[in-house]
Amino acid sequence: MVRTVAHNIRAVKETGSDLDVADKTRDQALRERAQRVLPNGMYGHMAVRPRLPDAYPQFFERTSGCRMWDVDGNEYIDFICAYGPMIAGYGNERIRAAADAQRERLDMANGPPAALLEFAEKFTRQVSHADWAIFAKNGNDATTVCNMIARSRSTKRKILVCETAYHGSQPWANRMSRGTPPEEHVHYPTYRFNDIESVTAAADAASGDLAGIVVSTYRHDIPHTQELVDPAFARKVREICDAEGAALILDDVRGGLRLSLDASWSEFGIQPDLSAWGKAIANGEPLAGVVGGDHYREAAEKIFVTGSFWYQGAPFAAASETLDVLAETDAPRYMERLGQQFRDGLYEQAQRHGHGILQSGPPQMPMLQFEDDPDTKKGFAFCVNALRHGVYLHPWHNMFLSVAHTEADIEEALEGTEKAFAELA
Amino acid sequence: MVRTVAHNIRAVKETGSDLDVADKTRDQALRERAQRVLPNGMYGHMAVRPRLPDAYPQFFERTSGCRMWDVDGNEYIDFICAYGPMIAGYGNERIRAAADAQRERLDMANGPPAALLEFAEKFTRQVSHADWAIFAKNGNDATTVCNMIARSRSTKRKILVCETAYHGSQPWANRMSRGTPPEEHVHYPTYRFNDIESVTAAADAASGDLAGIVVSTYRHDIPHTQELVDPAFARKVREICDAEGAALILDDVRGGLRLSLDASWSEFGIQPDLSAWGKAIANGEPLAGVVGGDHYREAAEKIFVTGSFWYQGAPFAAASETLDVLAETDAPRYMERLGQQFRDGLYEQAQRHGHGILQSGPPQMPMLQFEDDPDTKKGFAFCVNALRHGVYLHPWHNMFLSVAHTEADIEEALEGTEKAFAELA
Repeated sequence: MVRTVAHNIRAVKETGSDLDVADKTRDQALRERAQRVLPNGMYGHMAVRPRLPDAYPQFFERTSGCRMWDVDGNEYIDFICAYGPMIAGYGNERIRAAADAQRERLDMANGPPAALLEFAEKFTRQVSHADWAIFAKNGNDATTVCNMIARSRSTKRKILVCETAYHGSQPWANRMSRGTPPEEHVHYPTYRFNDIESVTAAADAASGDLAGIVVSTYRHDIPHTQELVDPAFARKVREICDAEGAALILDDVRGGLRLSLDASWSEFGIQPDLSAWGKAIANGEPLAGVVGGDHYREAAEKIFVTGSFWYQGAPFAAASETLDVLAETDAPRYMERLGQQFRDGLYEQAQRHGHGILQSGPPQMPMLQFEDDPDTKKGFAFCVNALRHGVYLHPWHNMFLSVAHTEADIEEALEGTEKAFAELA
Repeated sequence: MVRTVAHNIRAVKETGSDLDVADKTRDQALRERAQRVLPNGMYGHMAVRPRLPDAYPQFFERTSGCRMWDVDGNEYIDFICAYGPMIAGYGNERIRAAADAQRERLDMANGPPAALLEFAEKFTRQVSHADWAIFAKNGNDATTVCNMIARSRSTKRKILVCETAYHGSQPWANRMSRGTPPEEHVHYPTYRFNDIESVTAAADAASGDLAGIVVSTYRHDIPHTQELVDPAFARKVREICDAEGAALILDDVRGGLRLSLDASWSEFGIQPDLSAWGKAIANGEPLAGVVGGDHYREAAEKIFVTGSFWYQGAPFAAASETLDVLAETDAPRYMERLGQQFRDGLYEQAQRHGHGILQSGPPQMPMLQFEDDPDTKKGFAFCVNALRHGVYLHPWHNMFLSVAHTEADIEEALEGTEKAFAELA
C-alpha cells in the first residue's frame, strides 16, 4: 500500500507525432480543448480564484474509496471528497447497490417512487427538529427554499446572512461576482459570524420585518481561517429569532452529517426552525433537502417549488443507505478521530521542519494554513509538493474526511506530507 | 400488446388485518404516510394547483420505454415523459449503458471527467449559436445563469420576462407563490407573449438599463392554451436586443430538442445570444446547461457559479449518447409525426362522440383542452377515464412525446381514449 515512487505528473505523454502534443499530459491536452468550449476553461469549484496551481489536474478518470486517479493515471489519497459529498467514500458498494437497484426499477417518472417517502421518514426521524422534508438538487436550492418558507410565514422580508458566508451561487447568496444588481441584496442585511453585537444590531435594524437569520454550521467561508461557533452566539441568535418570530435557518449543506448525525447545532442544544442539507446526504448522488418543524409546515405548504429532477429515485435510495452506513460507523466520531490523527501528524511534521502552521475547523473538515503566508504562496507550494507525493489537499478551502479513510490511509498520506514539508523551502 | 382489461386502480389491497388498511391501495397508504412528512403530502410538480384528480397515482414503481407502472401495478402508456426529460424513453438501453459505464469509472470527484468536455464540444457543435457551455442541475439554474451573464456584460439591470411564462421556481422567476418580497421582481418587467407592442413598451421603459429579454421556445405556460411563436414577434425581440445591446435569452429548457436539434428559434432563422437547456438533454439524468456565443464569453467568464453536483460524470455520458440517439432517429420530426397521429385520432374520436376539443402547441408537446370547460371539469373527467384505460394524459399541462413511442403505442393509446370519450357524460 505504501507509496514509494514519486508521481509522474506531467510525465505521461500523449501519443501522436506532433511534437507540441507529445510533451503534453492528457490533462493539459484536455485543458486546451476546454479553453475553447468552457468560459475560463472551466466553470464551478475549479474556477474559483485564486485558482489551484497548474500542477493540480483538472480532469479525473477513476475513483475508489478515499482514492482518486487523474486522467494521466496519477493516484491520490483524497482529502476533498468531491468538495464534501463523498462522506462514505467513492463507489461505496452498499450505497451504490441501493442506488442501482432503484435506478433499475425506476429513476425518473411522472411522480416519485416510494424511496422518496422512505428517506423523508428516515431523515425526519434522525434530525431532532424535523417534522417534514422537501427535496431538491443543489444545496443552494435548499437554502433558497428555507428563505421562501421563512418569508411565507408572514409578510416579513429581511433575511440576515453572515457577511462572508457561502450559501450558494444564486444571486441572493452571491456577492462575489458580477451579474447581480445590488438591489437584489437589499433584503439580505449582514452580520459577522460569532459577533453577537453585529447580529443584534442587524436584527434591531430589521425589527418588525425580520423573516429569518441564516447561520452556517460553523464559519467555513473561504479563504478565511475556520472558526467553530460560539455557543453563546448560537443562543443569542436563537433568542433573537424567538423574540422576532423569525426563522433560525441552519445551513448544514457543507457541514451536515460530519459533525453530527443530527442538525449540527444540536450538539450544543440549539435547534433551528429550518435546516438546509445537500452534499453528503446521498454520498454523491445529487440530492439536497430542507427539513423543518411543524410550526413551519403551513408556511412550507404555501410556497411552490419544483425542479425537473427533484423526484429522481436513485438519490433517495442512496440517501437512505448512506444514513445507515453513517450510523453504523458512528461516522462523525470516526472522522473526527481520523482527522485528528492527520492533524497531529501534520503538526509534528511542521514543528520538526520548522514551519508554523494553523489548523482550523473541526478535525472532520480540517483546514491547513501557514503562518506568515498572506498570499498563500507557501500553502500552494506545500500542497503542490503533497500532490506530487500522492496526497490531494487544498491550500485555501476546508478539506473533508470520509468513513472510507482508514488509519493506514492517514499514515500513508503523512508519508507524502513528510516529503512535502521536507521539500518546502 | 393491445389492452383488453380495464385497470384495477384502487382494487389492489394492502395486506394486513386492519379493515381500514385493507381497502386501501398501496398508493393511498403511501399518500397517508406522505401527509405526515411532506408539506401538502407532496412537493413539486404533483403539488401544483389545481392538483391532479385523486385517481392519479402519486407513487410509481417501474418504467420502460413509453410505459410506466404505479405502485399498485397499473400500467400506463405515458404522455408526460416525467414532465419532459424522457425524450428517448425510460431506461433507453444505449443511454443507460453510457451513463452506467461512466458511473462505474467515475461519477463524482474533485474535478470532472473528460465526459463533461466531450459533451460540451458535441453540444456546442450541434447548437448554431453556441461557442461555449456551462452546466448545472436544474433548468432554473440555467435560466438564472443566463440572467447573470446578460447582466455581467454591462452594468444594466433589467431582464424582461413574459408575464405568465415559467422559467423555474426560484424567487426571481416565481410570482405564483408566497415567500418572495415583491422588490425581488423590480428588475424583471413583463411583456405579453407574441405581443409586439407590449415587448416594445417594456423595452422602451427599460431603455438604457436593459440587460436581456427572456423568451420561451413557444408559449407553454400553464394552464393557458399553447401558442406557437409568431416569427414577426421573434424578429422584433431580436431587433430590440440588437438595438439595446441586450441579450436575447432563449429558455429552451422545456421545449429543447423536441422542436429542433438546434436552438428552437433557429427553425425560423432567429439566433439567441444565450440559451438555457435542461430536462431532455441527458434523457432523465440530472443535467442543465447554458450555451452562448463568443460575444458573451467574456461576460460569462466574469461570473462565478457552481453547485455540488455540477461536475457529476454520468449525466454527461448520458447526454452525449442522447444527442446521438436523437440525431439518428431525426427525433423532432419523428415525434411530430407520432404526435400528429395521436392528435388526429383524438380529433376524430372527439368529433364522433360530440365533444369540442382544442389541441394546441406543437404535436411533439401537445396540449388537450375541452371547449366550454372553464373549470377544466370535463378535461379532468376525460383524463381520469383515459387513466383507467391505461393512458396517462394531463388535463392542464402540455404533454410530451418521446422517440420510444411507436405507431402501435399511439394506436393502443387511442383505444383507451376512445373508451374515455365514450364514458364522458
